[in-house]
Amino acid sequence: MAKINKLLIANRGEIALRIMRTAREMGIQTVAIYSEADRNALHVRYADEAVCVGPPPSTESYLRTDEIIDVCKRLNVDAIHPGYGFLSENANFASAVRQAGLIFVGPSPESIEVMGSKLAAKAAVAHYNIPMVPGTPSAITDREEAKVISAQIGYPILIKASAGGGGKGMRVVENEAEFDEQMDRAVSEAQSAFGDGSVFIEKYVTSPRHVEIQVLGDQHGNIIHLFERECSVQRRHQKVVEEAPSAILTPEIREAMGRAAVDVARACGYYGAGTVEFIVNDKLDFYFLEMNTRLQVEHPVTEQITGVDLVKQMIYIAEGKPLTIKQEELQIKGHAVEVRVYAEDPANNFLPDVGTLETYIRPQGNGVRVDDGFEQGMAIPIYYDPMIAKLITYGDTREEAIQKMIRAIDEYQISGVQTTLPFCRFVMEHDAFRSGQFDTGFVSKYFTPDKLTPVPNITEAELAAVLAAYLMENQKPKTNGPTTQIATKGSKWKANRLS
Amino acid sequence: MAKINKLLIANRGEIALRIMRTAREMGIQTVAIYSEADRNALHVRYADEAVCVGPPPSTESYLRTDEIIDVCKRLNVDAIHPGYGFLSENANFASAVRQAGLIFVGPSPESIEVMGSKLAAKAAVAHYNIPMVPGTPSAITDREEAKVISAQIGYPILIKASAGGGGKGMRVVENEAEFDEQMDRAVSEAQSAFGDGSVFIEKYVTSPRHVEIQVLGDQHGNIIHLFERECSVQRRHQKVVEEAPSAILTPEIREAMGRAAVDVARACGYYGAGTVEFIVNDKLDFYFLEMNTRLQVEHPVTEQITGVDLVKQMIYIAEGKPLTIKQEELQIKGHAVEVRVYAEDPANNFLPDVGTLETYIRPQGNGVRVDDGFEQGMAIPIYYDPMIAKLITYGDTREEAIQKMIRAIDEYQISGVQTTLPFCRFVMEHDAFRSGQFDTGFVSKYFTPDKLTPVPNITEAELAAVLAAYLMENQKPKTNGPTTQIATKGSKWKANRLS
Repeated sequence: MAKINKLLIANRGEIALRIMRTAREMGIQTVAIYSEADRNALHVRYADEAVCVGPPPSTESYLRTDEIIDVCKRLNVDAIHPGYGFLSENANFASAVRQAGLIFVGPSPESIEVMGSKLAAKAAVAHYNIPMVPGTPSAITDREEAKVISAQIGYPILIKASAGGGGKGMRVVENEAEFDEQMDRAVSEAQSAFGDGSVFIEKYVTSPRHVEIQVLGDQHGNIIHLFERECSVQRRHQKVVEEAPSAILTPEIREAMGRAAVDVARACGYYGAGTVEFIVNDKLDFYFLEMNTRLQVEHPVTEQITGVDLVKQMIYIAEGKPLTIKQEELQIKGHAVEVRVYAEDPANNFLPDVGTLETYIRPQGNGVRVDDGFEQGMAIPIYYDPMIAKLITYGDTREEAIQKMIRAIDEYQISGVQTTLPFCRFVMEHDAFRSGQFDTGFVSKYFTPDKLTPVPNITEAELAAVLAAYLMENQKPKTNGPTTQIATKGSKWKANRLS
Repeated sequence: MAKINKLLIANRGEIALRIMRTAREMGIQTVAIYSEADRNALHVRYADEAVCVGPPPSTESYLRTDEIIDVCKRLNVDAIHPGYGFLSENANFASAVRQAGLIFVGPSPESIEVMGSKLAAKAAVAHYNIPMVPGTPSAITDREEAKVISAQIGYPILIKASAGGGGKGMRVVENEAEFDEQMDRAVSEAQSAFGDGSVFIEKYVTSPRHVEIQVLGDQHGNIIHLFERECSVQRRHQKVVEEAPSAILTPEIREAMGRAAVDVARACGYYGAGTVEFIVNDKLDFYFLEMNTRLQVEHPVTEQITGVDLVKQMIYIAEGKPLTIKQEELQIKGHAVEVRVYAEDPANNFLPDVGTLETYIRPQGNGVRVDDGFEQGMAIPIYYDPMIAKLITYGDTREEAIQKMIRAIDEYQISGVQTTLPFCRFVMEHDAFRSGQFDTGFVSKYFTPDKLTPVPNITEAELAAVLAAYLMENQKPKTNGPTTQIATKGSKWKANRLS
């Protein structure tokens, strides 16, 4: 069994810091890499050693396999944690790391490769009884055959480009009368986007929810799941609010999804931390979507409800240790919610709004966790994902976690850039979210910028009154009389409003 | 049943903020009171309304019952939470609050009064089978009778002043030969300190540990306990490191202590949150010491291992709601450690070292909670307890919580005042603490200032090398070559060391 003594984190920002914190708790030395744009980043300061690997963009620095492996050799690094994004799901990188005699803190290159291809993934899990969205098993070109299959599956159906991604070449067909027109469009879009006009047909899931299962597997064939995360609140098809557990799963469906996720992992000989994504309809039927062969952004909500440090487990697994957590001992304790704080303007179609964090004061206290990579005065670089922080709250119940989230959002002080915090507050207060009755259409269905509650602004008259009272008090330092300060419930800290 | 809509917090600092956070999560408006010395304090800014109640010292402001009740009337406050210290265990205050038609978020004045007197407390619990330190039931004046009793109890014994406190008039007697001399000293000290020379005799508990049980009672006679907190690491007879659960209790003793604590609470018709303190010897015999009829400083460790928000429960209880937590449903999940970060110099006999927090950056991340009342640039007032913060960590196991604590201590950046952080790090790394084999003599037995690990200092040569590398990089912004920064494991963030 290997022992990791020095770990290089091939990533930046909050996830690099988060990994380093656990490494430090385990007594493991940490090495940061950074691009010239991240010279003053927190992850660089936090690490025991830090090496600049090139300028932005990422292709010149964070994605340079050769340079990263070279740094490992020069600094006697034992292992590399890739975080998420960048090289985390790159089978060639995992392979190169292994060939260099280093430990990759993640799954085998083979698992990454299989799960990186939708077709290969489907083929791999074929011998297990994993629910799949009904559809054609392979690419289809015969239009009449497609119509027969669609009628069997039942409308609405979805036409998807084989080579697809990002919604390109994807068309919903409500009934047979629309079929030809939508098929033409899908093929033509697929042809022009991917140079490949072949398409699939799938049942279109109405009111879909995105629910994923966290799994952990060791190198000895033991695989467990750590329950689900509900990630249906998305903007621009990207998650922005996550929670664990889901508000709607029954214990039976939770168990069935957990078993299916473990089977998916088993099908590709998986080890490390991974996430099996499912789509769930309004009848709670669930279908396998894909497997992410890495740590997810939203992993903290699982950590909060299980007490398991996922990064620590990943490191143990990479060292070859057998899992010591038993499935039957795991239980859900409480409820956790995460909101992603992006430097984006929710009033302007969530466009990135990078700039300098003029004010940056984190919320604190019982049940609040902030994973971030910034501090006051720092600029958010234009080269990377504009996520500032992940704000996580947890309580004994879902209601308590949500109330804590609203309190924490109100306590968070950020100025200099627009953020998704007001949007997240809108979600937390919305009846559909509170009741648990929502799906991936939440934003398009309910959200318009006028729904954002502006941070309460003090009027000029109020400001004058407060200032006058303040000055009066300061001139009469011995006064005992009460001076009621003006404030509004749910407002930001008053200091902000006087300055 | 009353509904609390607006709560005045008759306290300051971290506990005022901590209570306000929960109130805000519950949709309750908050009113702060403050002294002129606390004009810019965080609890003043955080509250919905804030009223100055006078100048320091506390007798002129935080302890002014009449003024505080007057503020409540003027601002339509429904209830007062006293926090800890100040008026929290003052039966007259609780009584005045009740007479003013306000809700006191705490126990009845009668409970406070009974448990405030050692004799009354002993009498109250007499009908329950509560283990007490063997000793005389009342004050003793006959020296020969005292010798007979001491021989029955068995040496070593302790002579304690009836009117005592703070160690005055307290003497350990190892054997009968020493008895007369020590008795003379005890009586004479008691006489001069309290004007009352009467003394008790008690068994002297060797290797004593301080273990306390958290209880919650409602106004309908339901009382539960939330397990123990171990608070044996003390300096100047005051707690500085606490944890839950205790490293040494067996499930059987935990249950027996829990039952005893519930009985103590029942004996005084207790409602609200309270703490029953026990002394535990090296054979795990436990003896009732006293009951604290308020929220404790160290309550967060209990919150972390049970998931129960104690302040929320206190508010529900004050509103007259019955407890919804059932004893049999409560379980310990994980392990939590708290260290108190005082502005004190551990290298100089823990003398207070007040001043301005020139640097103040809190640790973050998974399993770390900071309850504080300061931010960077603020001064620590000389008028009050010099506690800056409570740093709490929690993990699945005791080992994990301790490792997180060391990581968090290393991550905490405070300059401008000396703090107890280096001392707390010493405790976390000490074998006696790690193994759980320690008692209230920990500090006198193991600690000397030379045991403190100084914050690793960079040498001038190293500093020059780092600066040169930094300047070189900045002059050649396109360089791709690695620049290894110099750092030491366990060091503070490097930014600190370059500035």
